[in-house]
Amino acid sequence: MLEEKDIPKQWYNLAADLPTPRQPPLAPDGSVLKPEMLERVFPANIIEQEVSTFRWINIPEEILEILTLWRPAPLRRALAMEKYLKTPARIYYKDESVSPAGSHKPNTAVAQAWYNKKFGIQRLTTETGAGQWGSALAFACNLIGLKCRVYMVRISFDQKPMRKTMMQAWGAECIASPSPHTRTGRKILKEMPHTPGSLGIAISEAVEDAVSDRSGKSRYSLGSVLNHLLLHQTIIGLEVKKQLKIAGEKQPDVVIGCAGGGSNFAGIAFPFVCDKIHGKKIEIIPVEPTACPTLTKGPFTYDFGDIAGLTPLLAMYTLGHNFIPEPIHAGGLRYHGLAPLVSQAAVEGLIKPRAFDQVKCFKSAMLWARTEGAIPAPETSHAIACAIDEAKKAKQEAKQKVILFCYSGHGLMDLAGYDKFLSGKLRAYSLPRHKIRDSLCALKKFPVAKKIKTGRW
Amino acid sequence: MLEEKDIPKQWYNLAADLPTPRQPPLAPDGSVLKPEMLERVFPANIIEQEVSTFRWINIPEEILEILTLWRPAPLRRALAMEKYLKTPARIYYKDESVSPAGSHKPNTAVAQAWYNKKFGIQRLTTETGAGQWGSALAFACNLIGLKCRVYMVRISFDQKPMRKTMMQAWGAECIASPSPHTRTGRKILKEMPHTPGSLGIAISEAVEDAVSDRSGKSRYSLGSVLNHLLLHQTIIGLEVKKQLKIAGEKQPDVVIGCAGGGSNFAGIAFPFVCDKIHGKKIEIIPVEPTACPTLTKGPFTYDFGDIAGLTPLLAMYTLGHNFIPEPIHAGGLRYHGLAPLVSQAAVEGLIKPRAFDQVKCFKSAMLWARTEGAIPAPETSHAIACAIDEAKKAKQEAKQKVILFCYSGHGLMDLAGYDKFLSGKLRAYSLPRHKIRDSLCALKKFPVAKKIKTGRW
Repeated sequence: MLEEKDIPKQWYNLAADLPTPRQPPLAPDGSVLKPEMLERVFPANIIEQEVSTFRWINIPEEILEILTLWRPAPLRRALAMEKYLKTPARIYYKDESVSPAGSHKPNTAVAQAWYNKKFGIQRLTTETGAGQWGSALAFACNLIGLKCRVYMVRISFDQKPMRKTMMQAWGAECIASPSPHTRTGRKILKEMPHTPGSLGIAISEAVEDAVSDRSGKSRYSLGSVLNHLLLHQTIIGLEVKKQLKIAGEKQPDVVIGCAGGGSNFAGIAFPFVCDKIHGKKIEIIPVEPTACPTLTKGPFTYDFGDIAGLTPLLAMYTLGHNFIPEPIHAGGLRYHGLAPLVSQAAVEGLIKPRAFDQVKCFKSAMLWARTEGAIPAPETSHAIACAIDEAKKAKQEAKQKVILFCYSGHGLMDLAGYDKFLSGKLRAYSLPRHKIRDSLCALKKFPVAKKIKTGRW
Repeated sequence: MLEEKDIPKQWYNLAADLPTPRQPPLAPDGSVLKPEMLERVFPANIIEQEVSTFRWINIPEEILEILTLWRPAPLRRALAMEKYLKTPARIYYKDESVSPAGSHKPNTAVAQAWYNKKFGIQRLTTETGAGQWGSALAFACNLIGLKCRVYMVRISFDQKPMRKTMMQAWGAECIASPSPHTRTGRKILKEMPHTPGSLGIAISEAVEDAVSDRSGKSRYSLGSVLNHLLLHQTIIGLEVKKQLKIAGEKQPDVVIGCAGGGSNFAGIAFPFVCDKIHGKKIEIIPVEPTACPTLTKGPFTYDFGDIAGLTPLLAMYTLGHNFIPEPIHAGGLRYHGLAPLVSQAAVEGLIKPRAFDQVKCFKSAMLWARTEGAIPAPETSHAIACAIDEAKKAKQEAKQKVILFCYSGHGLMDLAGYDKFLSGKLRAYSLPRHKIRDSLCALKKFPVAKKIKTGRW
């Protein structure tokens, strides 16, 4: 329990502490990207944060006021699961599922909406796959007073109508992508009128929509990957530090977060990565699905953030921007790349990624539901699976470890996945090596991909 | 913010303080029911609570331990809505949506499961309409270690498959009712193979299942109406009292809860009804739908708790046990009666009921979602609508009132109702007088119905 007045007043920027400097984003021709080249996509105050190397960045009072609608988020101890596992470890979890949108996403959605509004922007566009991010931005725009349009991948739009209703309840427009609203959308609809859509198409539509608005009052907003958004999520780990102190713990021995684009992982982990850089012994583990093993199987190289190649080239672990993962239920972990800051922490050896298959993760989620009571998001189940492994290891070693993980969201909108698991229809899936090779081939076309030779690559 | 150690250690029993004695439950022949006649349905320790007139009843340590999975539930102030309404009132809401099942129901589900287990019972049966109660009992039985079978009204079973998955995730059996598992079910299936089912049928099946189990280790569990279950919910209002004190408020001027069977209303209101009995000036308002106006339009009389007439006769406000309300989206408020203890508080004039139609309630829910951020359950929206009315009244009167209401559950499993509202397909509905008259006719057959002459009836 943390009091409202003790909520952190600053975000932490890992860029200030990384042992080696960040690789800059590049333009498609390989030249270093100038920040002002992003100004049609993002407002200048957000770009400033994106490139900042200040260690601490003040959280504006008005953002804090909105965050206190659900923050400080509880830090709880998983006593029932500890007992079940007969582990000497103490397992703590940071419960980010308590936000109105049901995940950690609103932490950055509120901040992004606020900075855009501050800059005079009146309307944000974004894309969403499963709907978590779209809901979070709709929620934030509504509270801040911005219009919001969400391009939702058509197959999800059709399969998850309740996510659309959530966005509409918060006053946002939710449109199936591809749509007739953009040039990209019209072109694709003409060529493939029955396409289920993809995140790549939806990103292209959202960016095109924002930059082609002649009033100049529209911008684009992203749910993960970029630096400023990881920054906004660090409030998670900073709160945890205060809460662990109240609980009488010096520091965690293990910190775990699931990793798709990297935002909830960075949120809980970066303040502890900072401690590790400064000499503390902490094991920090991002967990990804074996169906999309970016950190565990991909190379660290320059790649586009989206399929269409509209974003700058980012230095990150990637499976190649053309890579389309299997339709696993942890939709939030189906991203081909991983945030540059998280990627660089991995290159430096500060974090040690693991990959689990979805059957193991759903089994862990069931153990969680039947001991701790709540039903986790399929994404979150990856962190739980890892926490269980670590608790078992602590038992074998007879060590009283402190294990901390981020409970990034609840699974109430994802029960279809549980239904499949409970009826025995869910299969484990690991991406075969040849598929990674095929997908990475395309990267070789970019000469810049070969330039990075830091760390283990 | 209340610390875990400050969670109330006793439940409050309004029966100890009611100005006039309770009307006893009756057997179908009109004789006073002996508690032991209930022993095939409920365990003796629960029956003891049901008839108790002790003011304070200790909460067993093990129940408290499970409740702390999500309790103390937050008491929050609706600052954004206050600002929007430009009201001088201070609006507080007790957030019961934070439980893993998403509503206040687990407060009693956990207690009932624990007492049954303590008594040597191994298996509970129950019925569920929309699924809130079934999920809560499944959740509780799983944590306590009881088997659980839920008879779910077939139409809901088919329309809300996710609720079934929730129950299954917690290890419960969820069966569409009518089912081939009971005599009642088989008979109805033979006569009407395509019936959508009803709560009345489901109750009959669940009770029959429990009492006909030859091992004697099965009992039945109910989600609202009875005294012991209202008792378990008083932890809500008792926590609020401590929290208001921390917030620097002496007492609320207005206390509001939605009322279906009466459990969340009793939970937040009874500790304040006690204050009112002892001279404090507090307005206490149960809010019901105009589609099912039990307290505002029904008589106070003896009636069965279920359609089939399997329960004892209870002295309560009722629209007649044959009454089937319109299919409004607040499924939890579609009950023909109202808890005897709540009913008697109404007879005594301690509480003043109001009724609202669902369109007004959904509008209020939208205002809530767009100011405070979260999407409430359709049931909860009734309490919000009343809080808004009271806040507006305070503005007209220029009074700095303290308004308190129970935010009984979230609406994430009820988005279909929002979709209907947002697309303009939802209609207001008030039960016409002749329909009440028709439904009440059947009651005249029970001579006991005429016996009660307390209060305004």
